[in-house]
Amino acid sequence: MEHSLEHTMSLLTRTPAALDALLRGLPETWTFRNEGENTMSAFDVVGHLIHAERTNWMPRANMVLQSGETQAFEAFDRWGHLQEIQGKSLGQLLDEFARARSESLDELRALNLRPEDLARRGRHPVLGAVTLSELLAAWAAHDLTHLHQISRIMAHQYREAVGPYSAYLGVLKCAGHSSP
Amino acid sequence: MEHSLEHTMSLLTRTPAALDALLRGLPETWTFRNEGENTMSAFDVVGHLIHAERTNWMPRANMVLQSGETQAFEAFDRWGHLQEIQGKSLGQLLDEFARARSESLDELRALNLRPEDLARRGRHPVLGAVTLSELLAAWAAHDLTHLHQISRIMAHQYREAVGPYSAYLGVLKCAGHSSP
Repeated sequence: MEHSLEHTMSLLTRTPAALDALLRGLPETWTFRNEGENTMSAFDVVGHLIHAERTNWMPRANMVLQSGETQAFEAFDRWGHLQEIQGKSLGQLLDEFARARSESLDELRALNLRPEDLARRGRHPVLGAVTLSELLAAWAAHDLTHLHQISRIMAHQYREAVGPYSAYLGVLKCAGHSSP
Repeated sequence: MEHSLEHTMSLLTRTPAALDALLRGLPETWTFRNEGENTMSAFDVVGHLIHAERTNWMPRANMVLQSGETQAFEAFDRWGHLQEIQGKSLGQLLDEFARARSESLDELRALNLRPEDLARRGRHPVLGAVTLSELLAAWAAHDLTHLHQISRIMAHQYREAVGPYSAYLGVLKCAGHSSP
């Protein structure tokens, strides 16, 4: 399946409401526990999504359009969510994520991107040349990576409670594949 | 984290709305595609969750309470969702899942389970003795396994579109860990 801006936007639009429906009001044992040292809780992941929204996706899309490959994107701080979550409740973070995403999508829509814009290249500080199309597809897949991670973090809390059923629960065998 | 009936129910309550927020109205390229031969689409997974709701969780919980270990649970048909999805739209399946889950939770609440009930054992046809507590914890973790799977199936559709970003997207490296 090739990248489609319409498909990307339809997914990006839904993620905040999906996380809200899953996480808001859950007991903190589901949302504040992580998978061990140097790993994230579901609460942390929502903070990370907010941080990426503010510093990664649309800022980099704008850089592709304005500077092309002449200037590399600023490095993304994978632990930058620590400043986003300080002193906040999960409900506040879910509200912030929904607001930040909605603003990003307004900004993206206002660009009225044409196919030739999507083929333009920027420069990622590690990956090198990336097209705007790849950046926008990665934004959607990044939402899915973190939904995948949240379901794994939460299932991890029940790894002993399920007893012999662990044999059938693939999510308990997931090693994470990436950090964070 | 030990099993808590309250925590299990709080998660089970949220899954239908989370899937609804994520999937309803998405372009079919996200929801009807799978990961290759003999794999499920997101649409199939919702059918599987309905099938498990009708034939697996509460029916087995009732068997533990009524028959203990004397009689093994009926085998679960992992492809039984095929009969659930025939001729239906994703919207219909999401409605059905929400209704079936709500009925299951009403039934579970009405049992007024005490700690000693949760320790009672039934007999799984493959896994052998399982406690009611393990069965109920597995029900919640099963929701999470399929949320994990849906996010992976959907990300798979963008595996080429993301270009070099695939290096950073853990969900694209997930091998699935279990079938289906």
